[in-house]
Amino acid sequence: MKIVLDAFGGDNAPLEILKGAEMAVKELGVEILLSGDAEAIGKCAGENGISLAHMDILHAPDILTMHDEPGEVIKSKANSSLAVGLKALAEEQGDAFVSAGSTGAVVVGATFIVKRIKGVKRAALASFIPAKNGHFLLLDIGANAECRPEMLVQFAVMASVYMKKVQGLENPTVGLLNIGAEETKGGDLQRQTYALLQKAPVNFIGNAEARDIPAGFCDIVVTDGFTGNVVLKLTEGVAGTMFGMVKEIFKANFKSKIAASMVMPGLKGLKSKMDYATIGGAPLMGIRKPVIKAHGSSNALAIKNAVRQAKLSVEGDVIGAISADLSKMAEAKQSEQQ
Amino acid sequence: MKIVLDAFGGDNAPLEILKGAEMAVKELGVEILLSGDAEAIGKCAGENGISLAHMDILHAPDILTMHDEPGEVIKSKANSSLAVGLKALAEEQGDAFVSAGSTGAVVVGATFIVKRIKGVKRAALASFIPAKNGHFLLLDIGANAECRPEMLVQFAVMASVYMKKVQGLENPTVGLLNIGAEETKGGDLQRQTYALLQKAPVNFIGNAEARDIPAGFCDIVVTDGFTGNVVLKLTEGVAGTMFGMVKEIFKANFKSKIAASMVMPGLKGLKSKMDYATIGGAPLMGIRKPVIKAHGSSNALAIKNAVRQAKLSVEGDVIGAISADLSKMAEAKQSEQQ
Repeated sequence: MKIVLDAFGGDNAPLEILKGAEMAVKELGVEILLSGDAEAIGKCAGENGISLAHMDILHAPDILTMHDEPGEVIKSKANSSLAVGLKALAEEQGDAFVSAGSTGAVVVGATFIVKRIKGVKRAALASFIPAKNGHFLLLDIGANAECRPEMLVQFAVMASVYMKKVQGLENPTVGLLNIGAEETKGGDLQRQTYALLQKAPVNFIGNAEARDIPAGFCDIVVTDGFTGNVVLKLTEGVAGTMFGMVKEIFKANFKSKIAASMVMPGLKGLKSKMDYATIGGAPLMGIRKPVIKAHGSSNALAIKNAVRQAKLSVEGDVIGAISADLSKMAEAKQSEQQ
Repeated sequence: MKIVLDAFGGDNAPLEILKGAEMAVKELGVEILLSGDAEAIGKCAGENGISLAHMDILHAPDILTMHDEPGEVIKSKANSSLAVGLKALAEEQGDAFVSAGSTGAVVVGATFIVKRIKGVKRAALASFIPAKNGHFLLLDIGANAECRPEMLVQFAVMASVYMKKVQGLENPTVGLLNIGAEETKGGDLQRQTYALLQKAPVNFIGNAEARDIPAGFCDIVVTDGFTGNVVLKLTEGVAGTMFGMVKEIFKANFKSKIAASMVMPGLKGLKSKMDYATIGGAPLMGIRKPVIKAHGSSNALAIKNAVRQAKLSVEGDVIGAISADLSKMAEAKQSEQQ
């Protein structure tokens, strides 16, 4: 299996990307196709003693920066590491793609270069959010600020496939993010989506209130990209602020510093639960090949974990299963209308 | 000054409401007009040794339950403690109103019985959300699941008045909840509201990202009622889940239990920061008289604090100031169009 990896995406590129690639080759047994400036990759690997065994390089002279508009990936930055990597994926030079680059550019690039699965209205970006006992998968987290009900239903179907095939959950539960449990709650989007989800081939368990999702109310939370992005960032913000406050309590005086040392392993475990590097990347769903968006500040571990997700997506034939489920839904809808 | 108080609203009515009323009379020097079943109020006060000095009772035989639709407050439940109290407010028998009853019913009842301030498109419910150094005011938190840009601008104006007059902030900062800092981010609602807020008579400091608001990015966060409700409940959910996790770490073994005892005062302080009883009630903005919605599970302290907010709203003439600011805005708009 060959994973295409954007060597120049993210805050810590190319060093951490190359280190992550080396880890992935060793631990996961995959081959890596690096996209990026060939000379710079060779130089970075050489200087840092990174082996490029089982890796090939696709030369891409341009770098897409955070200041570039997402659309530039298919215009002025068509020779960037991101665009060149996605083109290689579209041309079947690799089985899946990983980038820690700009989210918007990954979404636009994948949609226009690799293209959507037949029948998929919009690609959605999903993210694992830490909850009490594990994580839940939230989507869309920002690819589509405004959504229609049919889009949310497709998101639910695609995420269910992902949780089955990649996470190994037998019958993942789906909740619709809403401001109350009753099906009449929320706006038009929520009420119409609720009705559609009841008939969809997913394990829909009803509305999920924001208060309950951190406790692990369901495996998949479906919402529009605006609200999803707010949930993602607010969870991070509240947890971060609370960690900061707890830290201040522990740093207050001599006695509290001793107390801190006594519970340090537990606190470290809690912190690592919230760490994106162990959680993994965000799968972009609805594209013809598996695409994983790693966190912008990914270190080597995060990159390796994103490559693992890509590998599992290929092995589980996530794309084939999504395609099959959406076809079945379309057929059912058609026979219903006849 | 006389505050109308719904004696039968909330999970702990009437006992905690009456206790809170007694505290308010003693500590705040207000008079209280209790709405509710007169016999039950007398009995509860007598059995619990609560003095009803400086209080009058408005008999209201019916009780509005959480199972009643909000609209019933002006239909089949027009003799409920909530409806009778709001009617008394509309008829100027009191200066402000406090209820811990159903949020939906308070919004509907206040809107139809007391009515909106001239020019106000929709009443909005605001809530104080704990942040790193104090609290920020978030609105709308659920009175209007779907909003138009002009509504959000009015929310910003009303909340600014409240923060000035009741909280004593000189020039409260306003942020528009959005999924990025740039003014092009978000959907139509956010982009249009951004443009309008730049011209509005408020201290608008731009888009507020969900990641930054718990750290105290701005004093007022404006958003639609759907997103606001999600932010309110998710903050509660994430904080609650994290408290639970920290508690488990401290309960793990003998050593961690000792550590817990060493930092207990600090942890208690953190917990009380997140406690609605000390934070106070949610002001319903845009109604002709001050209306405060106390938390459904309010205890006596929370009720007293909600009465204090009502008192400060009257003393600061919040309604007069909102009315004046909205008139000025309407005039400015008119002269702009001429």
